[in-house]
Amino acid sequence: MVIIKETPYKMAGRMYHIEDSLISVGGHNSEKVIFGEKFQIIGGPCTIENRKQMLETAKSVKASGATVLRGGAFKPRTSPYSFQGLGEEGLKYLSEAKALTGLPTVSEIMDSSQLAMFEDVDILQVGSKNMQNFSLLKALAKSNKPILLKHSFGCTLEEFLLSAEYILANGNPNVILCERGIRTFETATRFSLDLSLIPLIRELSHLPIIVDPSHSSGISSLVKPVSKAATVIGAQGLMIEVHDNPCEALCDGPQAVSYKDFENIVKSCEELLPFAHQTKNPFLGN
Amino acid sequence: MVIIKETPYKMAGRMYHIEDSLISVGGHNSEKVIFGEKFQIIGGPCTIENRKQMLETAKSVKASGATVLRGGAFKPRTSPYSFQGLGEEGLKYLSEAKALTGLPTVSEIMDSSQLAMFEDVDILQVGSKNMQNFSLLKALAKSNKPILLKHSFGCTLEEFLLSAEYILANGNPNVILCERGIRTFETATRFSLDLSLIPLIRELSHLPIIVDPSHSSGISSLVKPVSKAATVIGAQGLMIEVHDNPCEALCDGPQAVSYKDFENIVKSCEELLPFAHQTKNPFLGN
Amino acid sequence: MVIIKETPYKMAGRMYHIEDSLISVGGHNSEKVIFGEKFQIIGGPCTIENRKQMLETAKSVKASGATVLRGGAFKPRTSPYSFQGLGEEGLKYLSEAKALTGLPTVSEIMDSSQLAMFEDVDILQVGSKNMQNFSLLKALAKSNKPILLKHSFGCTLEEFLLSAEYILANGNPNVILCERGIRTFETATRFSLDLSLIPLIRELSHLPIIVDPSHSSGISSLVKPVSKAATVIGAQGLMIEVHDNPCEALCDGPQAVSYKDFENIVKSCEELLPFAHQTKNPFLGN
Amino acid sequence: MVIIKETPYKMAGRMYHIEDSLISVGGHNSEKVIFGEKFQIIGGPCTIENRKQMLETAKSVKASGATVLRGGAFKPRTSPYSFQGLGEEGLKYLSEAKALTGLPTVSEIMDSSQLAMFEDVDILQVGSKNMQNFSLLKALAKSNKPILLKHSFGCTLEEFLLSAEYILANGNPNVILCERGIRTFETATRFSLDLSLIPLIRELSHLPIIVDPSHSSGISSLVKPVSKAATVIGAQGLMIEVHDNPCEALCDGPQAVSYKDFENIVKSCEELLPFAHQTKNPFLGN
Repeated sequence: MVIIKETPYKMAGRMYHIEDSLISVGGHNSEKVIFGEKFQIIGGPCTIENRKQMLETAKSVKASGATVLRGGAFKPRTSPYSFQGLGEEGLKYLSEAKALTGLPTVSEIMDSSQLAMFEDVDILQVGSKNMQNFSLLKALAKSNKPILLKHSFGCTLEEFLLSAEYILANGNPNVILCERGIRTFETATRFSLDLSLIPLIRELSHLPIIVDPSHSSGISSLVKPVSKAATVIGAQGLMIEVHDNPCEALCDGPQAVSYKDFENIVKSCEELLPFAHQTKNPFLGN
Repeated sequence: MVIIKETPYKMAGRMYHIEDSLISVGGHNSEKVIFGEKFQIIGGPCTIENRKQMLETAKSVKASGATVLRGGAFKPRTSPYSFQGLGEEGLKYLSEAKALTGLPTVSEIMDSSQLAMFEDVDILQVGSKNMQNFSLLKALAKSNKPILLKHSFGCTLEEFLLSAEYILANGNPNVILCERGIRTFETATRFSLDLSLIPLIRELSHLPIIVDPSHSSGISSLVKPVSKAATVIGAQGLMIEVHDNPCEALCDGPQAVSYKDFENIVKSCEELLPFAHQTKNPFLGN
Repeated sequence: MVIIKETPYKMAGRMYHIEDSLISVGGHNSEKVIFGEKFQIIGGPCTIENRKQMLETAKSVKASGATVLRGGAFKPRTSPYSFQGLGEEGLKYLSEAKALTGLPTVSEIMDSSQLAMFEDVDILQVGSKNMQNFSLLKALAKSNKPILLKHSFGCTLEEFLLSAEYILANGNPNVILCERGIRTFETATRFSLDLSLIPLIRELSHLPIIVDPSHSSGISSLVKPVSKAATVIGAQGLMIEVHDNPCEALCDGPQAVSYKDFENIVKSCEELLPFAHQTKNPFLGN
Repeated sequence: MVIIKETPYKMAGRMYHIEDSLISVGGHNSEKVIFGEKFQIIGGPCTIENRKQMLETAKSVKASGATVLRGGAFKPRTSPYSFQGLGEEGLKYLSEAKALTGLPTVSEIMDSSQLAMFEDVDILQVGSKNMQNFSLLKALAKSNKPILLKHSFGCTLEEFLLSAEYILANGNPNVILCERGIRTFETATRFSLDLSLIPLIRELSHLPIIVDPSHSSGISSLVKPVSKAATVIGAQGLMIEVHDNPCEALCDGPQAVSYKDFENIVKSCEELLPFAHQTKNPFLGN
């Protein structure tokens, strides 16, 4: 057990909130799911490419067991010459897909000026590159929506929790953490995903923590084994990129999995849920 | 000489603009200085704490040879509980200091909604944590002001130049690069500053590149030797944090230098200018 | 699936040896176990402290299901003032423990001049700090013993496999790989263990790969969840540090687990074996 | 000034030995040079390829101002299939080159069993990959020769000084430190060389510290600017790889400089010596 000690984050820490936080998502014009209660599987395309792709992928991931639908409309691409996403048009397709499947949705927001466009999006995602964009964090804290906060590839665990603290301290308690690996000297994988951070976060914080196995390695054959390991180590959900034809994806194709692979991954992870590691709550001693 | 090859950045590369870029700063209600032409020294407090401190520091750094005045009004602190800066009030003191000394100014902007407040600031600084905040980069590209873009501690050199490309490609050619070190496993210094990136950037890009020796190590005794090394290796300027009483600084005191140390550093660097490394322009072969 | 391509290692790669390698250990004066065939669990003290501790720990880990016994006699400590191990005396206790339990043994060798002392040790361990001590690798290749090669915390996956190649190319095909994390800027754990390297190694190489969950995080509460995740992701074994009283261990106490915890970990991992990820062999397409 | 505090290394620290250490090299059948007193420039081939190359390079670097001659005979190559050096034959050519030029010599030793072959080598180099090969460090401590200890690319500054401590504590006070960069996520250069470690080491330790600008970046055009920066920041010497025809070098050609470039670098660095940063001795307050 981690020795309990003063941490620089307060509201994100277990001292402040001993029991696991339950973050309720959707429920108005979509199904309601609760992060921190049941294992949640977010599936969908990295990038929304067109209406047909979005709707078909949504139906497929729903049929395979996804409980939340993802779809990127605004993409923070490293190069200004890479496809930047369909923007508002993409969000419309995402809404249609929600209406069609009943799945609540998540999409990345890059700027608080986009908030109006995200009205029908159920979870606002803050991407890795914006984890320390504190203006954005403060602005999103003023909305009522759950925030999916991704760990910056250039930041420590403590900084990750301090960014969550920015949202909590500014009035929004609904933060879902997402681990996706950090930058290291290793070049065989795109990022190094230290899964031991999951049980560590669960000791330190009450916030739900999920894993993104698609971005971490950047290699599609690794998505399934990493998903299984994340499930067993105690992650409270997964976020997986799914594409109808990964070879032709406009963005990050090499890390996307097919409809069939996704179905297979969901099944494998569900089988493992009874074996998932239960982190001891340092305050309850259970 | 680096072999010239296709680079993912275009406008930031030497193929697009063979000669060094000259970035003109100030000149209306302040002195005019040109980055890329002469060696520029930016000095001033990390954080503007009060009017007296700002004005006194401004006078002192001007007397010591600084050519640009810095002062942080909006501070992207890792923790929401750390001092976040004086905000608009701080910018007023910075304007007063400009009027007093004639020095053009630079201050960090965290959000495009702050642009109106920065009207009298001569250079808009994008901090390390916002280097990949592409919404901010695009918004600032629409302003006419020079942008001081700091290298993110979590990003590669190529990503740094691609972030500069975002500004150039969106219409603002006036980008000044600032190197400040990256995250590594070394704990003796706060960041690892690989100065060999300076001559490398000068081969690859036409944009002026300066060095921040204060943030890189986080140790005040290292500011002078790092400044000297940066000068000799071909940096086109320095940005140094100066405090009237480093021990009592509200932010980053351990890395600030005193008025007297700053004067001493400027003198040492000026002596070294005749010995500064001249990177060969791969297109001109000089 | 990883695209098959020319790799700088030859004999360590699947092109050279398509089927999984089976490495036979022990069998003369101990039980015989085969790495690559069944899941192997190595347990025992980080450091052999005295005869009683070694023998008791051996009996305990055997009873809990360990198939190989570990015990450090020569310890490559970062500081010359740290306890350097009992040396030859320690190896005698390890031999006694083998005789008592029938378990084959593994211990770290730091120098080829120690080979004679290691005659009764079944597996020669090359520690992380010596992964690129090529003189040692070449010398050990001349012995007939299986080598447990740990991944250096400062080296890439490719360099890890090239160090294995040094042993194979110099005549010893019996190499067992051991993953234990690398150095990164993260400070919450001692090392960052990217478990996705396990299925990646299993695609690239035919050599058995096990995981050391004790050294990676350096936190005892994480040993169990990491062991479970490693099992599910397809590791072919584990190496776990066990101490009768972790709080009083002479070396690395904070990462050791108690007898009871070890028993519990073994049980949990055995339950998960039917669910372990089966990496597709890129040459057999299964 | 670094706050003086208890350090895990004792004999390598300034508390133990307040004044700079002077390490005397050569003097029997070669010129005598003193590290820590004057600035020393080590030049020569990365790898000794043949007699002619060694002798010609030796004459050239001597003429250009080198004070110590380097030449690799045993090369710890990452791959077993790369050229491993000429071994004992190479050392003979190095001895001939010493006789010809009068320069003391340095060459890398990989194993204590090679000690007899190194009798005529003046400085024993411990390479980056062997910095934590403690058996080797202990064995070399028993010799009387000065040791050039290179910083491992995977280790911290503190570990570097603790490896020096292994040599000092085992009886050999003649350690010369050599900085050459560490592994990071940056890929534009081979290693990231944080030169601010040089003045930091000079505060913390009395041992002479030199810089290897050839291995750090791995780019020949950066050798000169890095050499100049290292000189100005207070390094007490340089070690530079020189090749008669860098394009045809058997090992590490891309980072070697030509005879003419070397001459030019030496001249530039000598000009800068009067401006070299003088680290304040924290005990003498000068």
